[in-house]
Amino acid sequence: MGRLAINFNTVFNVVGSLLRFLAVLMLIPAGVAYYYNEPIFPFLIATTITGISGFLIGMGTHSADEYKVRESFAIVAFGWLAVAIFGALPYVFNGVSPIDAFFESMSGFTTTGSTIFADIEAHTMSLLFWRSFTQWLGGMGIIVLFIAILPKLAVAGRQLFKAEVPGPTSDKLKPRLRETAKILWAVYLLLTYMEIMLLYLYGRFFDVPQMTLYDAITTSFSTLATGGFSPQAESIAAYNSPVVEGIVIVFMFLAGANFALHYKTIYGDRKALFKDKEFQVYSGIILMAVLFIAFELWLRLGEDLFESFMHSAFQVVSVITTTGFGTADFNVWPESTRFVLFLLIFIGGCAGSTGGGIKVVRVAMLIKYSFHDMFRMLHPKAVKKLRFGDMPVSDDVMKSIISFFVLYMLIFLVSSLLMVLTGLDIISATSSVATTLGNVGPGFGLVGPMANFSIIHPAGKVFLALLMWVGRLEVFTVLVLLMPEFWKK
Amino acid sequence: MGRLAINFNTVFNVVGSLLRFLAVLMLIPAGVAYYYNEPIFPFLIATTITGISGFLIGMGTHSADEYKVRESFAIVAFGWLAVAIFGALPYVFNGVSPIDAFFESMSGFTTTGSTIFADIEAHTMSLLFWRSFTQWLGGMGIIVLFIAILPKLAVAGRQLFKAEVPGPTSDKLKPRLRETAKILWAVYLLLTYMEIMLLYLYGRFFDVPQMTLYDAITTSFSTLATGGFSPQAESIAAYNSPVVEGIVIVFMFLAGANFALHYKTIYGDRKALFKDKEFQVYSGIILMAVLFIAFELWLRLGEDLFESFMHSAFQVVSVITTTGFGTADFNVWPESTRFVLFLLIFIGGCAGSTGGGIKVVRVAMLIKYSFHDMFRMLHPKAVKKLRFGDMPVSDDVMKSIISFFVLYMLIFLVSSLLMVLTGLDIISATSSVATTLGNVGPGFGLVGPMANFSIIHPAGKVFLALLMWVGRLEVFTVLVLLMPEFWKK
Repeated sequence: MGRLAINFNTVFNVVGSLLRFLAVLMLIPAGVAYYYNEPIFPFLIATTITGISGFLIGMGTHSADEYKVRESFAIVAFGWLAVAIFGALPYVFNGVSPIDAFFESMSGFTTTGSTIFADIEAHTMSLLFWRSFTQWLGGMGIIVLFIAILPKLAVAGRQLFKAEVPGPTSDKLKPRLRETAKILWAVYLLLTYMEIMLLYLYGRFFDVPQMTLYDAITTSFSTLATGGFSPQAESIAAYNSPVVEGIVIVFMFLAGANFALHYKTIYGDRKALFKDKEFQVYSGIILMAVLFIAFELWLRLGEDLFESFMHSAFQVVSVITTTGFGTADFNVWPESTRFVLFLLIFIGGCAGSTGGGIKVVRVAMLIKYSFHDMFRMLHPKAVKKLRFGDMPVSDDVMKSIISFFVLYMLIFLVSSLLMVLTGLDIISATSSVATTLGNVGPGFGLVGPMANFSIIHPAGKVFLALLMWVGRLEVFTVLVLLMPEFWKK
Repeated sequence: MGRLAINFNTVFNVVGSLLRFLAVLMLIPAGVAYYYNEPIFPFLIATTITGISGFLIGMGTHSADEYKVRESFAIVAFGWLAVAIFGALPYVFNGVSPIDAFFESMSGFTTTGSTIFADIEAHTMSLLFWRSFTQWLGGMGIIVLFIAILPKLAVAGRQLFKAEVPGPTSDKLKPRLRETAKILWAVYLLLTYMEIMLLYLYGRFFDVPQMTLYDAITTSFSTLATGGFSPQAESIAAYNSPVVEGIVIVFMFLAGANFALHYKTIYGDRKALFKDKEFQVYSGIILMAVLFIAFELWLRLGEDLFESFMHSAFQVVSVITTTGFGTADFNVWPESTRFVLFLLIFIGGCAGSTGGGIKVVRVAMLIKYSFHDMFRMLHPKAVKKLRFGDMPVSDDVMKSIISFFVLYMLIFLVSSLLMVLTGLDIISATSSVATTLGNVGPGFGLVGPMANFSIIHPAGKVFLALLMWVGRLEVFTVLVLLMPEFWKK
């Protein structure tokens, strides 16, 4: 074996810091446990183990001035894996089995929202808080948060930033990386705060039962992260209120759009969001899907028009943004609506959002590229530049989009076969893979929106958790670690 | 509306000739009817109508010295459509309803092999002969045959040839087009003759019941065309003979490979086939799939080893070559094996074969391209040319492969949704689309290998027939007709 091409000093250094940072964040659910008179020690033990591990891993290492491509991939991939593993400790010390805890923790940080819990309300409020909090941390990205708060990575972390923020293009809002990271987290915080306030206070203006502050906070964490964990077993249906549904729909929709555009819209260009091509396509797809499904529900299930529309709008936005909240069991909906929802799982949110999936811009560009090629067959000599909105698309970006798509589909197909081999039927297997790889949450069949992942074979659980990891880091970052060229000099 | 960009004189000229040619070919099943003392008039009326129509369509037109891109597309697309429509007449005059006749005729010429006939043996031998004969004509391509036989298109038909022969690359065997077309048809004829002889004569060497010459001919027609129509309701299972199955497996396998390479292997380079990268990948996929499915059948259905292997080998080769013959009802096989077969439907045969689907070379190139791009991420400055086997792959070819794949998947998804709306479940809908678009034949669920397409809604039947047409002409040729740029000057 030749020399390794990667500098592990740098990798251990950052992963160690990340874990120490995570240890500090674990004190927050400890506070929640104290407030509700629940056991604090699970969180304190988790904090201690995570902190000491972070210290040991980082021992003797020093930070780098610059991260090369290889180190950046390794830091992001292993950093996320470490965070998910240590983030599982609070579950373990609350009595969840290690495999289930790992699944739930990875599902949290990656904002997937698939749950292993058959009986959600049997768990402590502090643990369910941690569950939603991990989604919130993972949504905008724990490394981006790290860059925003700690000076250490402020200069050198560009590659890390790019590897964590979803989509083929990451808008540079400011020349300084740390400023960009701070802005993104500030917008994220602001929107979360707005949703919490709306959910908590709407009951005072409408004559309806109020939502508790606890439910408002955990629900908002999961909404803005497009995560989907809810403290209620029945998810958003538990609140039985069109107002709550309406608020959640709006914030899911915003969370599935580009946060850099939210910033521009708030400070300065009021039309930044609406002028954006990807946002237009995203809205167009949602509109068409909502109308189609509402019509089918009205026609075939005999629901009244308002009910059909609300169910459709909620589920379409929940699935395309890859949130995964539920207000209805779409497992019993007409086949046509389930098929459309299945397609939306793949599309996912916009680039620079907290949503997963393939991303709207990639899907749109692939289709445009193909029609462009048909045009080329008719006019072989006409050179027409490929554009997306006002933006010309370079060959390299297009190439990445294509390989992303092909690898994504390849992983989907091979993984589906593996899940079939664990004993699942084809619909349950393919949808369990699509929903975890796309960081959505619920699937169809045995893993439907009113079911959970506890029936999956233990090996299948670990495998699906790893798919969430692959999906959250947009395939390349993890896949590249499997190439021999990555390790060899 | 501006002036049309297309010269209809040329289009009508060739389509008219094609129909007159078809009218002559219809005399062959008339002869079969005469031999078996069955009604001849259905074929004679069909011949007359087709011939007169061909005469009327071609009246006042003259042949061109050269075909431009637009005219070539229109000739091939409308030529095939016209052949399928007039080829339906023998069914109609034998009492089949027009929609069903169109479905069966299109399924024949495109070598799909999906059948609408609930009771195959209720039909006359002459009609079932016509049914297999249309597959044989469509397999190597009726336009290629036309080029080989009639001097008219001999010089100018290069574009037509390219549009009809499957795959991204069409090997030029000889500088003269007509020579190439003749060679391809000669190899095709030779292999068909060999299979007929083997099927007809094997009974003399083994102590088993003999196959009739009629069955040997119709079966061989459908095998070499990778069509899949059988005169027996139970398809190849009806012969209940491992020898027949073995012979059919071998010839399906050869029909799914590149016929230009068969020619090279016969005349000259004995290793031409085995040195070919696509053939290696094709054989590799088949080997893996056969072993996997045989193992699953042995493990989960408790079949004995030989039986598992034969069932697996037959079905894998039948599906990947897009033939669609059956020896077992894979609808009741384990989920894992059905999932693998479903994937094989998409892969299809090799370029230059008579098989449908996406084609092995395209699938392989897409995957290679994506891994190549991952390599590029690690070594941004290394320029490594993309190759397939010994052959460098140009950007233009790669571009066509990508757009073919994206458009193919897009058509698959949109069409599946439409089929779901006709009332099918998701598995039946997606597989009915995949199997007709890929020119395979049977699907899963309601359209499984021991079922038929008679339960489909009439609108669905017409739609699936059009998908066969789109699939046989490899998407572009038909899709391009839908672009406004195609028609406008």
